[in-house]
Amino acid sequence: MELLENEIRKNGQVLDGGVLKVDNFLNHQIDPKLMQELGNEFARLFQNTGVTKILTVETSGIAPAVFAGLELGVPVVFGRKNKSLTLQDNMYTTNVYSYTKQVSNEISISKDYLSTDDKVLLIDDFLANGQAIAGLLSLCKSAGANVVGIGIVIEKSFQKGRRWIEETGIPIESLARIASLENNEVVFVGEDTKNVE
Amino acid sequence: MELLENEIRKNGQVLDGGVLKVDNFLNHQIDPKLMQELGNEFARLFQNTGVTKILTVETSGIAPAVFAGLELGVPVVFGRKNKSLTLQDNMYTTNVYSYTKQVSNEISISKDYLSTDDKVLLIDDFLANGQAIAGLLSLCKSAGANVVGIGIVIEKSFQKGRRWIEETGIPIESLARIASLENNEVVFVGEDTKNVE
Repeated sequence: MELLENEIRKNGQVLDGGVLKVDNFLNHQIDPKLMQELGNEFARLFQNTGVTKILTVETSGIAPAVFAGLELGVPVVFGRKNKSLTLQDNMYTTNVYSYTKQVSNEISISKDYLSTDDKVLLIDDFLANGQAIAGLLSLCKSAGANVVGIGIVIEKSFQKGRRWIEETGIPIESLARIASLENNEVVFVGEDTKNVE
Repeated sequence: MELLENEIRKNGQVLDGGVLKVDNFLNHQIDPKLMQELGNEFARLFQNTGVTKILTVETSGIAPAVFAGLELGVPVVFGRKNKSLTLQDNMYTTNVYSYTKQVSNEISISKDYLSTDDKVLLIDDFLANGQAIAGLLSLCKSAGANVVGIGIVIEKSFQKGRRWIEETGIPIESLARIASLENNEVVFVGEDTKNVE
């Protein structure tokens, strides 16, 4: 998605260790107009999948997920990283390790909001090793819900998440695919001279 | 806002201890269409304040804030509850105690996204004792930013936050105002026989 690639080129910062910082429009400051465009694109890509619910995980997946949900006419549920007093029992729970934050989070979702009747579209902001997606898939499996697609805002195609998801057979669409962050420079898939796919 | 009051009547659950659970449409499952309506209402209420930025705190304030930002044409920044590796230095930080979760969170915002030039609209999902709003005001004060308004989705008018904010002189608008949750029943301001204001 050219609009997103341009935004990443303009405002993304590559930190050492292969970290892409997009705090300017997605992970800390949010550009609502861009989120609407991303959400509409997810809705277009997955419009024929019969999706009944979008599942994401707090925090940065929520904005694009909500716009996709608006366009598709379905609710959004976000997995919670900490249990609150108002959400104690009746939960599906799994563990997700975040390389960026170097912590393991318990992610929970209420059994009230995920069931065997659901056709679920997973949406997340980043795909690297696929830990968050694996956690969301695990929650859907616990609920007996059918995952009809996976939508990612920014995919680090040089990490193992993409390949692993393709092996599950679940359709995946990433709006920006990054082939390399070497030398602190963003190279998108298709721009690289050698084919990383 | 009648639409929101109806949603609370229909889907809100009052737990013991004066906790209103609205996980069905705001705090866990999100109703995108309702969030758009809430965002548009905030935009209408604060359209003449010259707002340049919306500030909220993760997680549940983000959806209504992003729709308000879309309508007002301004970016949204959310205060982060945990510092990540990509956000370490260059932060304004304050502490906020959550009665619901019974934990104290450090909330941070990058100095890049809040400055003396900003006219800030604060948006949050709940107002009870006003701890989160006090934290956001503190961050704005640190940045020298001017707070032009405070928008709340659901206000517990029987707790002390509203009165405390009114004393600051900052305009506040709450889309639903709850006078009482006694006997596990939701009574909105205006519906109560005795005047709580």
